[in-house]
Amino acid sequence: MKEIKYLFLVFFFMTQMSIAQKNPESTELWEPIPAKVTSGEIGLPPSDAIVLFNGGDLSNFESVDGSKANWTVLNDILTINPEAQSIKTKQKFGDCQLHIEWSVPIDDINQGQSKGNSGIFLMERYEIQILDSWENTTYSNGQAASVYKQHIPLVNASKKPGEWQSYDIIFIAPRFNRSGGIISPSKLTVFHNGVLVHYNVSLLGTTEFIGMPVYKSHGDKEPLMIQNHGAPVRFKNIWIREL
Amino acid sequence: MKEIKYLFLVFFFMTQMSIAQKNPESTELWEPIPAKVTSGEIGLPPSDAIVLFNGGDLSNFESVDGSKANWTVLNDILTINPEAQSIKTKQKFGDCQLHIEWSVPIDDINQGQSKGNSGIFLMERYEIQILDSWENTTYSNGQAASVYKQHIPLVNASKKPGEWQSYDIIFIAPRFNRSGGIISPSKLTVFHNGVLVHYNVSLLGTTEFIGMPVYKSHGDKEPLMIQNHGAPVRFKNIWIREL
Amino acid sequence: MKEIKYLFLVFFFMTQMSIAQKNPESTELWEPIPAKVTSGEIGLPPSDAIVLFNGGDLSNFESVDGSKANWTVLNDILTINPEAQSIKTKQKFGDCQLHIEWSVPIDDINQGQSKGNSGIFLMERYEIQILDSWENTTYSNGQAASVYKQHIPLVNASKKPGEWQSYDIIFIAPRFNRSGGIISPSKLTVFHNGVLVHYNVSLLGTTEFIGMPVYKSHGDKEPLMIQNHGAPVRFKNIWIREL
Amino acid sequence: MKEIKYLFLVFFFMTQMSIAQKNPESTELWEPIPAKVTSGEIGLPPSDAIVLFNGGDLSNFESVDGSKANWTVLNDILTINPEAQSIKTKQKFGDCQLHIEWSVPIDDINQGQSKGNSGIFLMERYEIQILDSWENTTYSNGQAASVYKQHIPLVNASKKPGEWQSYDIIFIAPRFNRSGGIISPSKLTVFHNGVLVHYNVSLLGTTEFIGMPVYKSHGDKEPLMIQNHGAPVRFKNIWIREL
Repeated sequence: MKEIKYLFLVFFFMTQMSIAQKNPESTELWEPIPAKVTSGEIGLPPSDAIVLFNGGDLSNFESVDGSKANWTVLNDILTINPEAQSIKTKQKFGDCQLHIEWSVPIDDINQGQSKGNSGIFLMERYEIQILDSWENTTYSNGQAASVYKQHIPLVNASKKPGEWQSYDIIFIAPRFNRSGGIISPSKLTVFHNGVLVHYNVSLLGTTEFIGMPVYKSHGDKEPLMIQNHGAPVRFKNIWIREL
Repeated sequence: MKEIKYLFLVFFFMTQMSIAQKNPESTELWEPIPAKVTSGEIGLPPSDAIVLFNGGDLSNFESVDGSKANWTVLNDILTINPEAQSIKTKQKFGDCQLHIEWSVPIDDINQGQSKGNSGIFLMERYEIQILDSWENTTYSNGQAASVYKQHIPLVNASKKPGEWQSYDIIFIAPRFNRSGGIISPSKLTVFHNGVLVHYNVSLLGTTEFIGMPVYKSHGDKEPLMIQNHGAPVRFKNIWIREL
Repeated sequence: MKEIKYLFLVFFFMTQMSIAQKNPESTELWEPIPAKVTSGEIGLPPSDAIVLFNGGDLSNFESVDGSKANWTVLNDILTINPEAQSIKTKQKFGDCQLHIEWSVPIDDINQGQSKGNSGIFLMERYEIQILDSWENTTYSNGQAASVYKQHIPLVNASKKPGEWQSYDIIFIAPRFNRSGGIISPSKLTVFHNGVLVHYNVSLLGTTEFIGMPVYKSHGDKEPLMIQNHGAPVRFKNIWIREL
Repeated sequence: MKEIKYLFLVFFFMTQMSIAQKNPESTELWEPIPAKVTSGEIGLPPSDAIVLFNGGDLSNFESVDGSKANWTVLNDILTINPEAQSIKTKQKFGDCQLHIEWSVPIDDINQGQSKGNSGIFLMERYEIQILDSWENTTYSNGQAASVYKQHIPLVNASKKPGEWQSYDIIFIAPRFNRSGGIISPSKLTVFHNGVLVHYNVSLLGTTEFIGMPVYKSHGDKEPLMIQNHGAPVRFKNIWIREL
């Protein structure tokens, strides 16, 4: 009798086992364990970011021709020198998260594309426009936060000239095929002052002023460029995380 | 003693149960069960396809202004009537798989965009170009299988004029937001004569002859249009599957 | 002679015209004009955001069964009532940008999934995990900022329990086909304390504790849910923008 | 007088030039010129394809341990040798278009996963299931044309055992980051007998029999593997195009 009782128990647990076939443990993953990143106070870079500029000197940048960068640094603010060349990072980057703060000058004279124009060129080729778009008419695919001549921002989140603005950018680098063609284009997600203005938009190619953009094969990593377009735009708190 | 023996067995099975925590059954899905589709012989439509034209009449099409379609049907071949309007399907479609076979005329007189020009317009707006691109120079983003003025095909898989060619197209309809803007653009994957020429490319907007494409809000489903561009291009075996 | 001279001029300008064929104006888009959004000071919602909670009352929420939400609001902080149900927004949302700040309690007793557990359920179905992951071992696809049992965060950007943390989330709603199947899955981009932890990841389906996730058809818009998992997690500054 | 007439003409053309600011030429791209690919008759590989097997010998394959492949080739048909190992290509591939034809044996004895089981493993890791799914019950994410235990096919396009079936596959290789994590997952588009069964689905990681899939870093190119799962599945007409 007792044997039967225990046999029953055994079968009971076997049944339980069978019932338990679908269990929560089977869909757990214990590896990999994500690396720990200390995030700073608001506005400060996370612990795994490369600080490109946060006052001090311009040692992480050079002019686009490779000579010394000679934009102005004063009181920990970087200001474009309209006489100088555009600047680019010495280090090269592929997929990345970029934070940059900028401020266009108060300018009652110029209009349209001449008012506070600069730009962030990912991989020296793919531009997020900087412009005074507070009260300044221009073409929509050329206003602040546009992917220049490719994607109009979802909204216009511009602040007044003189105020500090921010871009938080996720950039996915293109991948070229054997013949320089493209299956995986560049992709961009952009927040302007914390407001989503582009979500994972695909780029048609290199930023072009005239004509349609098209891809030209380049390296897996390329410098980040900041454009001098003649206006004394200011910058601070520039950091980048390789993804 | 026997009790202990059976208790041991019980614990043995409990242990087994524990060892079995990660099991293959937990990642099985028994529902949903995909619908069965009978695929035809090569070139024939699957059982869930809507046959838009396969000889017979043009009853699934009308002229773009809503009047009767008056292209030519002879020997189960549809030929563009250059005097008539472009035609569109009476039924509207969103996400779809489209198969279409076409043949451009042998034409020793015309060149470039005038040689065998027609086009497939998904949702009456997004064009895959039809052209004689066998030995015919034109701009790359306007040749056969281009997403007209948006995406150059990865390769030129064109056949000689007079021969039958095919497009197999996967189209993902755009989704507009509250203000007519776009987060989920139209996407296209295209095979030209069985060769991949576009992979999940994002469209910038409506096909434009002049200027940059841009989205204008429209319905979730819209007709499929075949363009009359003045050349007597021929068609057969047109079918579509709603995805 | 003069005629020839002027004819020459005519041809000169025609040539110029031809040279000028590619011009910058052709790739400008002047419409649509993006709507203007005023972005707040850091931490404040943009002007087009719906503020779901920022102190005051819980009028934008209800319990998941439709009854009155009865979590605790004190000093403009919302705290989970472990005795109560999970809560959800009265309004429904599809594609959105969501900002939420949260803080897990200091808890020296519980471990793993029992330590500071809660969750943000987009469309009441797709969960971003909330957990104390400062110094607390659990499965990687169940730690803080995981897309629960679907995607491990790229890094662990957790702060200490008791500190305020933030999620900035972009959610793209799925689109179902005629048979409840899926071509366009849910997509998520997530920043944890300003650090990218997911980029446009595709979801396999509804969040599941046991078994593989799978999609079950639902509306275009569904409530946002905040989970009660037994821990008194705190919240503040919750806002959402429809995209 | 004549001079004035010609001056007028000059101004006329200058005006035209100005009017022509938005012109069709500006959005033409004349480069790059896509490479020409000759597409074969139906079922034959395009001119730029690598023919992996089309009768003859197995010289493009080896056993997974690197020894000689010893499956059976008879009458230009390749048949799995259930006693032998799985086979893989000697050449490695990344992004690709793959065509393969296969036929499961008529088998009145076995059921479920034992009936005509084999599989195509892209990069030796990511499996498209081969199975007799004509009249054979199994879990949906393990039936023919499933991305094994990750994605259920949109429809069941299976043919009867003994008949020839085809897969046309577009595979996009994953891209790993500095820490072996993933921003750009593997993507798959699959046609089963010409019917779309997966559209650009993102993979969660390596195919797993037990537990959740997860990525483990590997090379940019890896071999294509065909699985021996004990059933004498037959193959023919296997070709691949690097994208």
